[in-house]
Amino acid sequence: MAFQKPTGTQDLLPGVVEKWQFVEDKIRDLCRRFNYREVRTPIFEQTDLFVRGIGDTTDVVEKEMYTFKDKGDRSLTLRPEGTAGVVRAYVENKLYGEPDVTKVYYMGPMFRYERPQAGRQRQFHQFGVEAFGATHPAIDAEVIAMGYQFCRELGLKGVGVEINSVGNPESRAAYREKLLGFLRPMKDTLCKDCQSRMERNPLRVLDCKVDQDKFTGAPSILDSLDEECRVHFASVQEYLDLMDVEYTINSRLVRGLDYYTQTAFEFKAQGIGAIDTVGGGGRYNGLVGEIGGPDQPGIGFGIGLERIQLILEHQQVELDAVKPLDVYLVALGESAEKEVAKQLFKLRLAGFAAERDYLDRKMKAQMKSADRFKARYTAILGEDELERGEIALKVMETGEQRTVKLDELVQAIL
Amino acid sequence: MAFQKPTGTQDLLPGVVEKWQFVEDKIRDLCRRFNYREVRTPIFEQTDLFVRGIGDTTDVVEKEMYTFKDKGDRSLTLRPEGTAGVVRAYVENKLYGEPDVTKVYYMGPMFRYERPQAGRQRQFHQFGVEAFGATHPAIDAEVIAMGYQFCRELGLKGVGVEINSVGNPESRAAYREKLLGFLRPMKDTLCKDCQSRMERNPLRVLDCKVDQDKFTGAPSILDSLDEECRVHFASVQEYLDLMDVEYTINSRLVRGLDYYTQTAFEFKAQGIGAIDTVGGGGRYNGLVGEIGGPDQPGIGFGIGLERIQLILEHQQVELDAVKPLDVYLVALGESAEKEVAKQLFKLRLAGFAAERDYLDRKMKAQMKSADRFKARYTAILGEDELERGEIALKVMETGEQRTVKLDELVQAIL
Repeated sequence: MAFQKPTGTQDLLPGVVEKWQFVEDKIRDLCRRFNYREVRTPIFEQTDLFVRGIGDTTDVVEKEMYTFKDKGDRSLTLRPEGTAGVVRAYVENKLYGEPDVTKVYYMGPMFRYERPQAGRQRQFHQFGVEAFGATHPAIDAEVIAMGYQFCRELGLKGVGVEINSVGNPESRAAYREKLLGFLRPMKDTLCKDCQSRMERNPLRVLDCKVDQDKFTGAPSILDSLDEECRVHFASVQEYLDLMDVEYTINSRLVRGLDYYTQTAFEFKAQGIGAIDTVGGGGRYNGLVGEIGGPDQPGIGFGIGLERIQLILEHQQVELDAVKPLDVYLVALGESAEKEVAKQLFKLRLAGFAAERDYLDRKMKAQMKSADRFKARYTAILGEDELERGEIALKVMETGEQRTVKLDELVQAIL
Repeated sequence: MAFQKPTGTQDLLPGVVEKWQFVEDKIRDLCRRFNYREVRTPIFEQTDLFVRGIGDTTDVVEKEMYTFKDKGDRSLTLRPEGTAGVVRAYVENKLYGEPDVTKVYYMGPMFRYERPQAGRQRQFHQFGVEAFGATHPAIDAEVIAMGYQFCRELGLKGVGVEINSVGNPESRAAYREKLLGFLRPMKDTLCKDCQSRMERNPLRVLDCKVDQDKFTGAPSILDSLDEECRVHFASVQEYLDLMDVEYTINSRLVRGLDYYTQTAFEFKAQGIGAIDTVGGGGRYNGLVGEIGGPDQPGIGFGIGLERIQLILEHQQVELDAVKPLDVYLVALGESAEKEVAKQLFKLRLAGFAAERDYLDRKMKAQMKSADRFKARYTAILGEDELERGEIALKVMETGEQRTVKLDELVQAIL
């Protein structure tokens, strides 16, 4: 009986996993520089957290969650996104009591039961940041600049940001009415999704891929912003200018839920047809309160790592991801083999990536193995060399070969 | 409504997560040197994989799995251990077709519904390695030496290894009869677990913590090994000696399942009472076939990372885990604040970990923030300095302060 991985999941194997490691190293370095520290929350949470934190009328909560009962009859759900768990951890661990702004990042697996397609898996992976406790527009700009910089430093082409302000709940309520006034007369001409969404969440209708053309004359949310939101949005743009972040304003860009406020944004890269968004985020001044915490503002983004890998591949970006072997040790004969085992361990303790043969293969096959591992050196030990306490050291790139004392092998490679 | 993390799970927050990052960096470096490459398999698998790969009479499969139906009515299970998924990936992706021994490692979350206690969580984390395709005793010794070295390089005290050989199925069958001959007469005096286990799996009875004292006269499996297994075990020891690995032979150490063969081992460290085992593993020449693959040998270990953290804490091992900030930028006044936003971004692009205030705090509060972040430098910008195109740079350790050109701030810190 042969087993297969579940539909919508992937095995990341040697040769591919190094590209993921490369991106993750970049994430860790980026977050170090921007002073965001890692948090890790559980893979599953109480189901209600996501119902509350994502919204019970969203597709994610209605159709896509992996929800199950544990043996203690608790309803648990595999996290479908990263923010709800981080906000829960921020509240439960009372991080809001700390004197500085809480700046954190996460990366790891998330789960949504969706139809798998290119760049979309049921187990997928996100990198995200969240900053709690500050309303300062400089932090909105920092979060946007960070995602932008991440894409740039990976070497992606055509990186840009779209930004918008969705205002506060009051200015959004005013806009909602204006927008409904525009949409209702054309209701019958819109697609089914738009029709069902219209009264529940008219802002999301503008997002529709099908009916896009019909909305050219739609009112802009930016005209409904109150003074505070207008000043905040202008200030975010000023900070982005200071940092030379390339952005465009897209007044149709919305975040669907009521606790999203003011800044909303999406990260773009030169993609594959319609697939050009790698992530996005926004400010959510109402979310911490919704999850049961104090009234603390927050802002963050999430970036899809499958999407990043897909676009890196598509753009043929060369990653410096492969780590070659330092030394491959070749043994000829039984006593040489024992000495090789010893030298191998010494080299590894000294910090070198070192390898040997375990299949009792002949010299030629061992040299091929050294090639496959892209070894910088091979060290070849025969019985004669062993008797003299020596070993032959070959530089693989040049073919140059010399003999060194066994005791000095580590030094010779340093 | 306030939410809590599910029972048996943890939030790893800044201040603690750095200790995990430190251990993971060590794992990646260790695996690079020993030439093991990472594989990542899905968080959940088909339930049957674990029933087949772990065994349907084990506690794990009988009582501890998180099993659920997805929306397509497939029975899925959150992985309770790492080996089954890796073996499935090895078979499904036909890695056995490659010319070299397949040497891989994994680390990540696993799930078992158990009573939580110190060092045991329902979501726990393991680091493991697997080597497929070689029966050579040098690879048994390598795997053992690697786990041993991992514990040593973390700075754990009292690190040691217990080793045993459980033979092949034939020699184990012979031993089973001898052992039952010893155990049956004392059956009534044994604990309930032992009584129920005796006929199913008498080797595990010797593991029992309760009845330990009664087994002093029990036959040793080492006396039942056939020639091949005896030679293999002697050879493993010879390689361990070559590498100065400190081991003891424990003939009671067993792996429960039929496809475990020959080498079995456990890693020990000076622990907390009975908690002194950090992981273990063994050879499983029958497992790849059991999972539907070709008849390929394998060997591996799994090490519990919660256990590692618990013992590191208990032994008060100092980890070099905290990464201090390079620069904290202090702004006095509105135009200075804008310039600081710009300089901050430049410093971060240049590779420095840099931070500022986002809460409009006074200078004194900002300096305290710099202290909390353990900043190496603070750079203080007032309106006067800004007019002169300068900034004050203070070395926090010595208190020494000087003025540098704004344009040369990055250079000055390099």
